[in-house]
Amino acid sequence: MKRTNYCGDITAALLGTKQTLCGWVNSYRNHGGVLFIDVRDRSGICQVVVEPSRPFFDIAYGLRNEYVIEVTGTVQRRIEGAVNPNMKTGEIEVVAEDLKVLNTSIPLPFDVDKSRGVAEEIRLKYRYLDLRNPKMFANLYLRHRIAQAARRYLDANGFIEVETPVLTRSTPEGARDYLVPSRVHHGEFYALPQSPQMFKQTLMASGIDRYFQLARCFRDEDLRADRQPEHTQIDMEMSFVTIDDIHEIVEGLMKEIFKTAGKDLQTPFIKLPFDEAMDRFGSDKPDLRYSLEIKNVSSIFANTGFKVFKDVLAANGSIYALRGEKGAAYSRGHLDKLTELAKKNGAKGLVWLKVKGGAFEGPSAKFFTPEEMKAVLNVVQAQDGDVILIGSDVNKRTCQSFMGALRKELVKELPAQKEWAFAWITNFPLLEYIPEEDRWDAAHNPFTAAVEEDLPNLEKDPGSVRSYQFDLVLNGNELASGSVRNCRREVQERILALMKHSKEDAAIRFGMLLNALEAGAPPHGGIGLGLDRITALLAGEESIREVIAFPKTAQAVCPLTESPNKVDENQLKELGIAIVKE
Amino acid sequence: MKRTNYCGDITAALLGTKQTLCGWVNSYRNHGGVLFIDVRDRSGICQVVVEPSRPFFDIAYGLRNEYVIEVTGTVQRRIEGAVNPNMKTGEIEVVAEDLKVLNTSIPLPFDVDKSRGVAEEIRLKYRYLDLRNPKMFANLYLRHRIAQAARRYLDANGFIEVETPVLTRSTPEGARDYLVPSRVHHGEFYALPQSPQMFKQTLMASGIDRYFQLARCFRDEDLRADRQPEHTQIDMEMSFVTIDDIHEIVEGLMKEIFKTAGKDLQTPFIKLPFDEAMDRFGSDKPDLRYSLEIKNVSSIFANTGFKVFKDVLAANGSIYALRGEKGAAYSRGHLDKLTELAKKNGAKGLVWLKVKGGAFEGPSAKFFTPEEMKAVLNVVQAQDGDVILIGSDVNKRTCQSFMGALRKELVKELPAQKEWAFAWITNFPLLEYIPEEDRWDAAHNPFTAAVEEDLPNLEKDPGSVRSYQFDLVLNGNELASGSVRNCRREVQERILALMKHSKEDAAIRFGMLLNALEAGAPPHGGIGLGLDRITALLAGEESIREVIAFPKTAQAVCPLTESPNKVDENQLKELGIAIVKE
Repeated sequence: MKRTNYCGDITAALLGTKQTLCGWVNSYRNHGGVLFIDVRDRSGICQVVVEPSRPFFDIAYGLRNEYVIEVTGTVQRRIEGAVNPNMKTGEIEVVAEDLKVLNTSIPLPFDVDKSRGVAEEIRLKYRYLDLRNPKMFANLYLRHRIAQAARRYLDANGFIEVETPVLTRSTPEGARDYLVPSRVHHGEFYALPQSPQMFKQTLMASGIDRYFQLARCFRDEDLRADRQPEHTQIDMEMSFVTIDDIHEIVEGLMKEIFKTAGKDLQTPFIKLPFDEAMDRFGSDKPDLRYSLEIKNVSSIFANTGFKVFKDVLAANGSIYALRGEKGAAYSRGHLDKLTELAKKNGAKGLVWLKVKGGAFEGPSAKFFTPEEMKAVLNVVQAQDGDVILIGSDVNKRTCQSFMGALRKELVKELPAQKEWAFAWITNFPLLEYIPEEDRWDAAHNPFTAAVEEDLPNLEKDPGSVRSYQFDLVLNGNELASGSVRNCRREVQERILALMKHSKEDAAIRFGMLLNALEAGAPPHGGIGLGLDRITALLAGEESIREVIAFPKTAQAVCPLTESPNKVDENQLKELGIAIVKE
Repeated sequence: MKRTNYCGDITAALLGTKQTLCGWVNSYRNHGGVLFIDVRDRSGICQVVVEPSRPFFDIAYGLRNEYVIEVTGTVQRRIEGAVNPNMKTGEIEVVAEDLKVLNTSIPLPFDVDKSRGVAEEIRLKYRYLDLRNPKMFANLYLRHRIAQAARRYLDANGFIEVETPVLTRSTPEGARDYLVPSRVHHGEFYALPQSPQMFKQTLMASGIDRYFQLARCFRDEDLRADRQPEHTQIDMEMSFVTIDDIHEIVEGLMKEIFKTAGKDLQTPFIKLPFDEAMDRFGSDKPDLRYSLEIKNVSSIFANTGFKVFKDVLAANGSIYALRGEKGAAYSRGHLDKLTELAKKNGAKGLVWLKVKGGAFEGPSAKFFTPEEMKAVLNVVQAQDGDVILIGSDVNKRTCQSFMGALRKELVKELPAQKEWAFAWITNFPLLEYIPEEDRWDAAHNPFTAAVEEDLPNLEKDPGSVRSYQFDLVLNGNELASGSVRNCRREVQERILALMKHSKEDAAIRFGMLLNALEAGAPPHGGIGLGLDRITALLAGEESIREVIAFPKTAQAVCPLTESPNKVDENQLKELGIAIVKE
């Protein structure tokens, strides 16, 4: 066609030129017989004027919202008073000399520019309208630029994008695999990968040296608010590297990604050992835009008369305190809500002390000495008008966790001290004990390497073994998880044995990888970054659904295509499967 | 780690410097007590020398093929006579000052540098070894560069990469869809997309304007030699375009892709209408590296006494002839094979005439006049020592097709006149009649637009309606198929009706797209290019499996992961399905 320009690019620089635009009727007005049509395309909006003398005036008069038109005309300056300084094209208008309707539109259920206020189910059903909203286009465009920037950076750093299979074998975390029945091999199934983990490690054993992929990952999750059955991961693996090498590459990557959104990131990111993160922030993904910390105040209460604390300390437990700025003004209802939040996160109760004119108020205040209360006030740096929240538990991690949940709630009221707070969380333990199943499980990833000098203790004291695992967190979100991997079959099998995978079982589940490890696998490590979440954060969106073109609902349904759906009996017959009635 | 360089980059420019290399033992030799170890990584091979006086000599002595080592040493010039001019690193060697074994390897089933000669099933089972072969790495690296070049070019031309869902709805060509049972919605299924066709058209209705994606496509094919259950498509769609606009963009794209392999392509590509392609080459994907053409010689035999030709012409059939260069020397067995090939492609028989010393020889020669034979000889430009093959059929297309098959066979003996012969095949008919089902079917794509002025004849004479469909062929391979699409629901429904899709059925199968078309869809068109085939051609590989990291066999099996495989009964129970015993 003969489009000469996008609508949004018609500015005063083009005054007097003839232009042909193609786009949608965003709105139309009739001013004393002259028609003003706002034509929209992905770049913006341009005002088109149709004079009553034009032969195509009747056609223009019949235009309705979202009709698709092609219009040719001359760019002229708008008359005084009609200039819109908030619009890139606000100084000009195009005087139509020709106008064609390329397609019509039925009346639509919502206006494109108001789509963001419509119920999500309706937005998703009419996604083709919703995506015409400029903010939605901006989101998809940002996602595109992030993906391109990531690829460019990784390519420049010697990484090779390798596509790994989508139809593959049911994996370790098998229970949440999507399965695909094979028509050619009845009774057998492919599985969709939850991540390309084993393939990328196998690629390291293949000598690829540096691999990446913007990989689609699949997980048949139980329904949770902001999860999708499929998501995209910036997936990487490198040979002959240490943790620091991986961190450096990822920091450079994040810098490039943030540049696409005009943000200048400071690197390197801080490194926070897991223990310290729990001790200071009560979370392994702390939101470090806020300096507020939880404080271990156990020693202050060493001789306390308060029975709850006394019992906790006697059982080797911990007591943490947290400053609630201006919390002396909290209502009883508000404090009850905070107590509920703590309980939901494992607390048995919560102590609060309001600081008012140098005195302490609260139902438990009478159990504490003034010295104890002063000491706590000093540690949490509370001031007059604040509240101090104090929690205790025989299990230190539990105490840290619920105090961390309170911190997360309290910082909502505080001003952020920076826009983007990245941190590496490091020094995770390798294994966690699962009492219900009387076995150990990988704290993060079954293929993470143990710290070499801890290996002799692997069977004797699995919980004490440190790992080369790390997470990347941003503003309280876990963006990525990575590690240096086991590169020796024997060590990997010992770790799998602690997880109660026999050699035979391990060979069936992880055969490809174990075989590759014993055939000259190099030391290697890698990471996977959530593209959806990174994009949502940079787009300023709460939900990843706003940065996915065709997302599914929290019920894993696509209202646009109405999938999943029932299929023909014959299709199932060909696949050799049948639906089991419940 | 402290790797300073890749093995293949250690050249004379680095003489005297200290370097640390990480890689695999490719081979080792003991020359009078001095060890020579060829260390390999993805970049190439570097010779390392270990002198007997070194403290790590015993470790080096224990090295075996494919052990992974880290070695530090000084780059020195090889002694006279030991220089290998065929190797990038052939002038130098690294004298080891430190050497560590990073990992061992069990003895392996084949040597990495001989892997290409091993049975494919074994290569795929040990793919991590096979991929260490430098040619395999070169293939994956070429694929990576092609993908990056494609993305860079499309990005620079205003295309936006949008990811479309992998878990979606069973599509028009449903019979070959892979299905995925939903655990959350028992009895319902997602389907894996055979292409993002409907999504990309919906994105045009969403105002994206220019879309691309390197899209994974899935098809549960009946087993054929060089097909894969999943393949990758450079998928594009553009709004407000004509066929010529699409061709221009793709020509630029191919130029960029070929540049990555150091090839300079001439554009624009020739355009060959479908009818002409069939008439001149007997194929809709002719190999145009060869100028050889089939020739319609029907008029020469207008008054023939040869009953076969007479009957064919009486029934409005066609006669085509083809020159077989130097074919007068063909044995009877060779000519029988050509006749068989013609028959396999629909011929009832084949006439051949050897041209020998100005005379014509062959079992049918006696039925023709000297004038007829001379005339045919002139048309096909045969010379003394050639054979002329003549075929006839009441159906012109059938005759063209088997003559095209013969052409394809004969050009194997001819020198190619160019390395890369691209062509656009254009002017396809919109619909083809399927006699067995008494219905029309899309000749290519159900969403291709009909030529506007033919629309009034759509129901009266469907076979006469021309389309905006086109193919891109390269050296006899169909690389891509594209078209300008229907952008009006009403027209799309009329076409679907001819394919025997009722309005209700169409709404169920194509609902998303039909709804989007009536909501202000712009005119649009696009194309999908097979990345696997393009890469294989540029890599000089016969099979696309050589350019896919982890391909499946022709039986759709992955010998590396042993998928598809049987799964746990519990997994099926959770999905609400059961295997039907045959």
